[in-house]
Amino acid sequence: MNDLHNVDDPASYMHGSFWRKHPEFRRIPWRATGWRDRAFDFAHPEVREYHFRLVEEYAERYDFDGLELDWMRFGFHFRPGAELEGGRLLTGFVRRTRTLLDHWEPRRGHKIRLGVRVPSRPQTAIDLGMDGALWAREGLIDLLVFTPFWASIETDMPVELWRRLAGDRVTLAAGLELLLRPYHTYRPLQFNSIETVRGAAASLLARGADRVYLFNYMDSQTEMPDKEHYGELLRTCGRLDTLAGRFRRHIVTYADTVAPGEPMPAQLPKTLDAGQWTSFRLHCSPPLRRAKLRMEVEGAALATVRINGAECRAAEAESGIKPGPDRGFTVWDIPGGAAGFAVVDVQAQTPGKIHWVEIAGV
Amino acid sequence: MNDLHNVDDPASYMHGSFWRKHPEFRRIPWRATGWRDRAFDFAHPEVREYHFRLVEEYAERYDFDGLELDWMRFGFHFRPGAELEGGRLLTGFVRRTRTLLDHWEPRRGHKIRLGVRVPSRPQTAIDLGMDGALWAREGLIDLLVFTPFWASIETDMPVELWRRLAGDRVTLAAGLELLLRPYHTYRPLQFNSIETVRGAAASLLARGADRVYLFNYMDSQTEMPDKEHYGELLRTCGRLDTLAGRFRRHIVTYADTVAPGEPMPAQLPKTLDAGQWTSFRLHCSPPLRRAKLRMEVEGAALATVRINGAECRAAEAESGIKPGPDRGFTVWDIPGGAAGFAVVDVQAQTPGKIHWVEIAGV
Repeated sequence: MNDLHNVDDPASYMHGSFWRKHPEFRRIPWRATGWRDRAFDFAHPEVREYHFRLVEEYAERYDFDGLELDWMRFGFHFRPGAELEGGRLLTGFVRRTRTLLDHWEPRRGHKIRLGVRVPSRPQTAIDLGMDGALWAREGLIDLLVFTPFWASIETDMPVELWRRLAGDRVTLAAGLELLLRPYHTYRPLQFNSIETVRGAAASLLARGADRVYLFNYMDSQTEMPDKEHYGELLRTCGRLDTLAGRFRRHIVTYADTVAPGEPMPAQLPKTLDAGQWTSFRLHCSPPLRRAKLRMEVEGAALATVRINGAECRAAEAESGIKPGPDRGFTVWDIPGGAAGFAVVDVQAQTPGKIHWVEIAGV
Repeated sequence: MNDLHNVDDPASYMHGSFWRKHPEFRRIPWRATGWRDRAFDFAHPEVREYHFRLVEEYAERYDFDGLELDWMRFGFHFRPGAELEGGRLLTGFVRRTRTLLDHWEPRRGHKIRLGVRVPSRPQTAIDLGMDGALWAREGLIDLLVFTPFWASIETDMPVELWRRLAGDRVTLAAGLELLLRPYHTYRPLQFNSIETVRGAAASLLARGADRVYLFNYMDSQTEMPDKEHYGELLRTCGRLDTLAGRFRRHIVTYADTVAPGEPMPAQLPKTLDAGQWTSFRLHCSPPLRRAKLRMEVEGAALATVRINGAECRAAEAESGIKPGPDRGFTVWDIPGGAAGFAVVDVQAQTPGKIHWVEIAGV
């Protein structure tokens, strides 16, 4: 609904004439630092009308089964501080779209479903003007995709909270992005593999997501480095029964989308003094019967590592795993496996820093 | 339900014999670093039974109008990783308490209400086993207080989300603590004043809280330094009409309670490079007609300051304001005042650090 690729180059072939001709309709007219500043500001009736005309045109020209309003490209539709009033305008836009599709359904002779994409966490979605839970409650949408924007797959999205807020009638889909970072400034940039997608998909489905939704998982250009597994991903990662019994990796990542001023929640990196305890949490469901803990540890020697209270035994270090740290993993065996939320309690013997935390197993 | 004062001194007169005799019932039997490690673990039936016997004893001995189960003293009732199963046990405890009160109501000849205190944010409350929203939905409780633990008043609690989750039948109360910090390690330790309580109370009531709930606002020992205003606080800070027209301060603080491993969300402190933009958000309702922005700025010269897009004019610096920074405030006038969520956009001219952000006015 508001794609911003290359807006720093106004001459780019990607831009329509409406955007080019109306800089006064941009989200932050007084600044042009990042792409987001030059997004359309949907508070302007002209902007909403322009986009609704596009929807009308699609509905008239094409006989489709469903339409998606992707509010997560790029997720910023109002000037800072105007998002709550803005949310009411977007609710109006979604309602108007639903009414349009209602009008086309008898002519097309079938249901026309409506889907939306919104930020991964309900409060952030509301604070950015994308109140997907309300749209579901009001029966305006059939599919609600909650998702990070792009910078990393988000493995711990609050599925249960979405369900409570959105109700049972909507199809809830967990959106998976292609990149994987433990935290925002982590380097090098890496991509998911079949094993990390399995982990995220299994956990989010086990927590109540009806579907997994893939973004940027293409078969060219933006694709997994292990593209030989792409077919398997499409065939197996959408349901718990097809995921069962396969090796998967549950990795601590972070939420890449926040409202203006909202702190970005990230567990990593974590700097430790000698003797200091810290905790990490990650969700490992369905249960892993055999599981190991892998961490990227810089400097620190770790005196004790426990998962949900159970002491873990040091195992052999692993290197060369991708995605994974260039310096390789320190590894522990988890007695009894892992199930549900796993809390990792760690005590540092010497000072250092932890950059990556995951549980992998079958 | 689980007070931990002085648990590092097992001989303290504060402890009951049940706690002393049963170290095996503690939350983290394998560690004793902080007070929280030695909390009762409510996963043990003996622990739940012990506390329920206390409730029974109170109900039998005293004719009270309402009972509060304060799960926020100290907010940690299960071993790390066991909080979701634990939450089902606490739901059982609350239900059993409600049933007990139902039994006493006809004997006492009046309603006996039930209240609880839970963490400030719904996801954290669930993740710590205190599913207050569910208890409200199931009709088990009459009063739901969401609150930080102790380290700081939390000025931006998600009242609207609580309402959606908990429904309309419960009385929702915003819990205010006595201390005030912009972030966890801020020094020196300071207390709220009548002006900062007015700000927090006005904002949370305007966002839909039915009540303001005070904790640690006593008339001796733990009290506001400006205790001459204590009477006024009690008379005026509970309702928007009695707060109207009084000078108030809306201050950025943080959430002091997180589940094990959950990142602690804080907007401050913020380190800035030369030329870098950053944003802060705070809620200022009901609208302030005349308002100024105050920040504690270390080092940085700020090139531009805008609130919801409107450029602010530099005003005279202020010092000696308490609570407030020892180095005093840099101040800006906000054209047109402030209403609802205010997003402060700041560009640094030279590198530095921002420690405190507030909007004050009438």
